[in-house]
Amino acid sequence: MPDRPAIVRPPYVAVIGDGDPRGPDAHRILEWAEEIGQALARGGATVITGGLGGVMRAASRGALGAGGETIGFLPGADPAEANEYVRTPIATGLGVMRNLVVVTAADAVVAVGGRHGTLSEIGLALRMGRQVVTLSSWRIESDHRLGGPRMHRARGPREAAEAALRLAKQGPDLPG
Amino acid sequence: MPDRPAIVRPPYVAVIGDGDPRGPDAHRILEWAEEIGQALARGGATVITGGLGGVMRAASRGALGAGGETIGFLPGADPAEANEYVRTPIATGLGVMRNLVVVTAADAVVAVGGRHGTLSEIGLALRMGRQVVTLSSWRIESDHRLGGPRMHRARGPREAAEAALRLAKQGPDLPG
Amino acid sequence: MPDRPAIVRPPYVAVIGDGDPRGPDAHRILEWAEEIGQALARGGATVITGGLGGVMRAASRGALGAGGETIGFLPGADPAEANEYVRTPIATGLGVMRNLVVVTAADAVVAVGGRHGTLSEIGLALRMGRQVVTLSSWRIESDHRLGGPRMHRARGPREAAEAALRLAKQGPDLPG
Amino acid sequence: MPDRPAIVRPPYVAVIGDGDPRGPDAHRILEWAEEIGQALARGGATVITGGLGGVMRAASRGALGAGGETIGFLPGADPAEANEYVRTPIATGLGVMRNLVVVTAADAVVAVGGRHGTLSEIGLALRMGRQVVTLSSWRIESDHRLGGPRMHRARGPREAAEAALRLAKQGPDLPG
Repeated sequence: MPDRPAIVRPPYVAVIGDGDPRGPDAHRILEWAEEIGQALARGGATVITGGLGGVMRAASRGALGAGGETIGFLPGADPAEANEYVRTPIATGLGVMRNLVVVTAADAVVAVGGRHGTLSEIGLALRMGRQVVTLSSWRIESDHRLGGPRMHRARGPREAAEAALRLAKQGPDLPG
Repeated sequence: MPDRPAIVRPPYVAVIGDGDPRGPDAHRILEWAEEIGQALARGGATVITGGLGGVMRAASRGALGAGGETIGFLPGADPAEANEYVRTPIATGLGVMRNLVVVTAADAVVAVGGRHGTLSEIGLALRMGRQVVTLSSWRIESDHRLGGPRMHRARGPREAAEAALRLAKQGPDLPG
Repeated sequence: MPDRPAIVRPPYVAVIGDGDPRGPDAHRILEWAEEIGQALARGGATVITGGLGGVMRAASRGALGAGGETIGFLPGADPAEANEYVRTPIATGLGVMRNLVVVTAADAVVAVGGRHGTLSEIGLALRMGRQVVTLSSWRIESDHRLGGPRMHRARGPREAAEAALRLAKQGPDLPG
Repeated sequence: MPDRPAIVRPPYVAVIGDGDPRGPDAHRILEWAEEIGQALARGGATVITGGLGGVMRAASRGALGAGGETIGFLPGADPAEANEYVRTPIATGLGVMRNLVVVTAADAVVAVGGRHGTLSEIGLALRMGRQVVTLSSWRIESDHRLGGPRMHRARGPREAAEAALRLAKQGPDLPG
């Protein structure tokens, strides 16, 4: 008789991006983030974000509206800072370093747009062995072809969500 | 019509203590941790731990057995390192510093026994404005009576769980 | 012919305490911190602090005035936030968690007064195997006598500095 | 009469890259790192690294050989893990997150080659407002032209060191 209860957890997918997108693409970025959140939830994934505004809020809104679970890792100490679509707010107190938790907690990561904060999260995700799907986000290449990144460019939100779901089920390539 | 969905999250209580208790008290410490986890879940709280063995496993086991939700914040990058009673494993990649997340994510903290790791978590919890209930754990006093800690000594597991549930509902005293 | 250059580094001693001490003891606490910094520098140690005000500034002032080296680990991203007695300011960007670096970088730690932030640093120091000398600071005992802390109470600043110099030369008891 | 002593600290430049470079470029990468360390020290900069092997060791060796100061931020708790060219070893206990300290402590950053760890450091450096000079390292571009990175590609080690010295004197563009 096995001691271990039959917990089968859903795949976790992080959606990362700008907390306050601006410029001509801002509206489209937020729409995409919401569609990605919705598609991930419909695909059975828990959606992880940094819990604040912009892309984090849009992705959580899409996922919660589709009946999904949403977890938000906040930089500060107050769980009430989470946006209203985060079902499980986690106050980390880590400041900038909460970004490491956002991507390490995930089985795969989707980046939608984003500035330097998003770039640092992509770098940390790859460092921690997580596959990253990008949509209108950073392009990263190596000059010397060692250690090519685990990155996948999607052309639209549906493709991004599908790729992330598939990669999340494969699981991370854990760092040595 | 309010935009905000009616998310009412449960109180979060962290149970902290030794990952591998030894000595004559070890058995009692683990029994207490399990009873505390059970009582917290019955009281409607989500039980947060560091996700590994010893007190973390016993508290999660008590909570899960009582139908409660259990979250485990792991130091490493592999969510599969969580014990079998953690429903939501969170791989943080933070190493030692995952302890900050364990206590900051919680509305209140219960320490059962414990060594230096637990002492550092109690210190971080107090630093982050979280109330701490101790059971057979560290005694901490100030020589100069400034900043007396937010600590409460319980005499048994039931008292510890009840105090933590009450304090969790009051919420943290956020750091300035 | 040895490849290794003959670098012999000085012992590193962290002085921790309140960044803004208040109450009737404040003046004495700052005087003690300055005396400790001075005695550590005269004893050949590099003085490590959190780089800001209060006890951190007083200890750095004492050390720099005695011709010693002072390193300050700042929570933010701007090295210019260091007090004027820090010779080597290190901006960490870590927020609360810069406290882990302050104590882990040190071979031994002196706590002078202090509130919850200092308590969390003492806990982290003990967790990381560093010996801690306290002067009018926290008293920490274990209910169950497992893992008694590596703490030493001093009665005055000279005794505190001498104990810290002696313990720093022994080096840390590295965590397993 | 000014209270502030006349501390004028040198510019700090971090050199980041692979801790164990392999492949046909490995030898050249290490030579470049050593030349960069040497040129930075001759230019008056303190050289900051992650304190371990490969590029970190080569850059420290170049700098120390030219009479410069070298600081190494180690991931673990033991300062003795630093390579033999680090004059000031700082044990951080932070694990993966020591990378944030390496780049935030610096006024400017040079990346030489590197794999995912280096990519994550570049991302964190840009996030923290530090300018990054790359030599045979990652190429990073944005799909949507918002927030173009503060990156500068150098064609050789001398150019990399000169650019970093110039950028370090400008100082960081501190995050808001």
